[in-house]
Amino acid sequence: MPSVTDEDLQATIARVREDVARLHGELVRYGLVVWTGGNVSGRVPGADLFVIKPSGVSYDALDASNMILCDLDGNVVPGTPGSDRAPSSDTAAHAYVYRHMPEVGGVVHTHSTYAVAWAARGEEIPCVITAMADEFGGPIPVGPFAIIGDDSIGRGIVQTLRGHRSRAVLMQNHGPFTVGTDARDAVKAAVMLEDVARTVHLSREAGPLVPIPSEAVDALYHRYQNVYGQAADARRDA
Amino acid sequence: MPSVTDEDLQATIARVREDVARLHGELVRYGLVVWTGGNVSGRVPGADLFVIKPSGVSYDALDASNMILCDLDGNVVPGTPGSDRAPSSDTAAHAYVYRHMPEVGGVVHTHSTYAVAWAARGEEIPCVITAMADEFGGPIPVGPFAIIGDDSIGRGIVQTLRGHRSRAVLMQNHGPFTVGTDARDAVKAAVMLEDVARTVHLSREAGPLVPIPSEAVDALYHRYQNVYGQAADARRDA
Amino acid sequence: MPSVTDEDLQATIARVREDVARLHGELVRYGLVVWTGGNVSGRVPGADLFVIKPSGVSYDALDASNMILCDLDGNVVPGTPGSDRAPSSDTAAHAYVYRHMPEVGGVVHTHSTYAVAWAARGEEIPCVITAMADEFGGPIPVGPFAIIGDDSIGRGIVQTLRGHRSRAVLMQNHGPFTVGTDARDAVKAAVMLEDVARTVHLSREAGPLVPIPSEAVDALYHRYQNVYGQAADARRDA
Amino acid sequence: MPSVTDEDLQATIARVREDVARLHGELVRYGLVVWTGGNVSGRVPGADLFVIKPSGVSYDALDASNMILCDLDGNVVPGTPGSDRAPSSDTAAHAYVYRHMPEVGGVVHTHSTYAVAWAARGEEIPCVITAMADEFGGPIPVGPFAIIGDDSIGRGIVQTLRGHRSRAVLMQNHGPFTVGTDARDAVKAAVMLEDVARTVHLSREAGPLVPIPSEAVDALYHRYQNVYGQAADARRDA
Repeated sequence: MPSVTDEDLQATIARVREDVARLHGELVRYGLVVWTGGNVSGRVPGADLFVIKPSGVSYDALDASNMILCDLDGNVVPGTPGSDRAPSSDTAAHAYVYRHMPEVGGVVHTHSTYAVAWAARGEEIPCVITAMADEFGGPIPVGPFAIIGDDSIGRGIVQTLRGHRSRAVLMQNHGPFTVGTDARDAVKAAVMLEDVARTVHLSREAGPLVPIPSEAVDALYHRYQNVYGQAADARRDA
Repeated sequence: MPSVTDEDLQATIARVREDVARLHGELVRYGLVVWTGGNVSGRVPGADLFVIKPSGVSYDALDASNMILCDLDGNVVPGTPGSDRAPSSDTAAHAYVYRHMPEVGGVVHTHSTYAVAWAARGEEIPCVITAMADEFGGPIPVGPFAIIGDDSIGRGIVQTLRGHRSRAVLMQNHGPFTVGTDARDAVKAAVMLEDVARTVHLSREAGPLVPIPSEAVDALYHRYQNVYGQAADARRDA
Repeated sequence: MPSVTDEDLQATIARVREDVARLHGELVRYGLVVWTGGNVSGRVPGADLFVIKPSGVSYDALDASNMILCDLDGNVVPGTPGSDRAPSSDTAAHAYVYRHMPEVGGVVHTHSTYAVAWAARGEEIPCVITAMADEFGGPIPVGPFAIIGDDSIGRGIVQTLRGHRSRAVLMQNHGPFTVGTDARDAVKAAVMLEDVARTVHLSREAGPLVPIPSEAVDALYHRYQNVYGQAADARRDA
Repeated sequence: MPSVTDEDLQATIARVREDVARLHGELVRYGLVVWTGGNVSGRVPGADLFVIKPSGVSYDALDASNMILCDLDGNVVPGTPGSDRAPSSDTAAHAYVYRHMPEVGGVVHTHSTYAVAWAARGEEIPCVITAMADEFGGPIPVGPFAIIGDDSIGRGIVQTLRGHRSRAVLMQNHGPFTVGTDARDAVKAAVMLEDVARTVHLSREAGPLVPIPSEAVDALYHRYQNVYGQAADARRDA
């Protein structure tokens, strides 16, 4: 990245470390994780690097200094803060997404209850709520069954999300991955995903859902992505 | 408003700003909102004005100074605190309600889970709990499917609630709006609505509900609205 | 009460006020109440008096000084702290229980979600969990439909609980009342009731329950009531 | 234990007391217990002793000094801190496990909602989530109906868990017991158990589950137990 001075890059990395550490607190606040499960990562803008949570560290103990800096192959950058620990066991999947989806600046993985409940049936979540049309532009798709150990999880995420409006995927029998323009946007997607997964689950168990016409889904999605919110946060908030 | 001095009006606006900011905390406390979703507004007594939440600001960061003052067409009053930000994306719906229902002093909108679950089926909530008879005087009605961008949401709310005992409406595929004599009363209605939406949902999934005779619903509603509670709070509390 | 000096009585009343105020916090902690709903009362040992929550006061604002002292007809004792406010709207039902069940030292009423869900179907909760056998000695019974305004709620509670092992009753379409040896014991019963109401609800929606043989229910109940726990708290804790 | 000096042993006991007291806070944090129900114990390494919670003490009041030291027959060691109180009513079951499973260093018992819901139907939890394969290596088994008072609960736990990958058992009509290499590991198992009990319950109520091939379950389990996490915590964390 020739246009980035080393000093700027260090400041950027420091900021991403702060953001990624702090954003893990949102997973706890919204009940998306238990124990040390779940992980957030954020791309370092202007460099082939991302920051991710260490493996097996309590949420109470996470801070900028123990986040781990990785290259886009998922290798820990030696000599950087936190590099004495292993990164999240899902690091390879995050790295695969960053390598193949340059527009993605943040990735989140959780085992949030209702999202996993849909994933364990391999069933996509239908779009029957206007907030879901706003945020995801349609149903939440299901990705393939893939087990940890090679690129198959990352590949499944990318194949499912590429060209899809949704920035959330339910990996079958496993759980949700969400992506976003940065780590915060991916965390927001994880929070909203669990919210719609829960609401649609509960609604459908009590009777037939009313579909939303696809033209209305399109209109809601385009408005929300392009018009909505404070100028600089157009995508992020409601 | 000839009878209101400018000084009194400013004090009133300041009080409504405080109330509206603080009452958003009740939406968080009762789990009715996630991320930056949901909004409370309060009419300024004695003026054609109301105060509403800004769009896309974290619940942790809300205070009186960033609440936004609007006229009854939903236009931000220039030069007032917070006027540099966009108001809630639901401002037009709140404004429509204030214009057409002069008895309403507060409006709340959330995407609370169980209320939305009923809304996504377009199904009214039957009145099978005495607390629901007290508070809402009968079933919670469903309003039309309407998408954001013109007056159709506001119109749907008003058409459904006008002449109805319930001060809550479930907008189809969208979610609940509640109204009240002031912002606090509307927030109470939002809290009680989610409570009855959840309880009746759970009850019915396990077997047939026992109806309450309509004379008993009437008796409970009239007593609660007219006799109950501390004198000044007759309507608000249990 | 000739054996009670006035000084002792005042100290006893002060202690019951403290206990009743503090115990309301347990209703909040365990999610049994929303807004200002729910109420705890405690009998004043050695006197025909009980202490109860005021109507319509926020849970955040409850303390010993605003609890209300009533006689066993439910009349506020004039000139005592808190006597300028109305007592809980359920005071008549509490008073009826104290008049007719001398062994009862505490009464709690909530609209806790799962207990009300059973009450809205008018269905007793079957005893399929050992902790429920310990605590309640069998199923949780349903009381009659009765509306507020006369003695019918109190009478329904007493008729259902008298001679029953359970110290919890589900008043049809209304909600649970629990009784205990003192206010703390009644609060424990309210907490345990919601816990078993939720667990049995969830269990049964997924398939047939395994009954517990009635001899085992008897053995568990007798052991727990007579042997269990620290000596002075035999009844109260697990 | 000839190789353990008395000084070392006292330090070890003090550390286990601290751990066991503190770990009870995790049961509260994850909502696995209400009132004074639930208990954690930890074996004292290098001695025929374990530390367990007292009976009937509030979770707010637990600290190292009121934990109770017992021998492997479940007898309180006289003259040690806390020995004036009765130990948890489940002490006999914990002791039985320590006597018969020397590899176990921690035991936890709760009445967590969803685990008890499966237990009240006497139904094992099928392994349809990769995190469950990681952690438990297959389904969560059901143990026999057994009531408190003799060794039958302990015997049922040991007979069910011995030779089973799962370190959690659902005692029929009663609730879960989990074991681990130490108290923390057993608490983690209790937390993960409730998480999978809830997720699989919810998933199955909405339609047929997708099974995970048994080879994949095996591969996930072996990888997680042998490779995963920070070196010293390989088993414990994700």
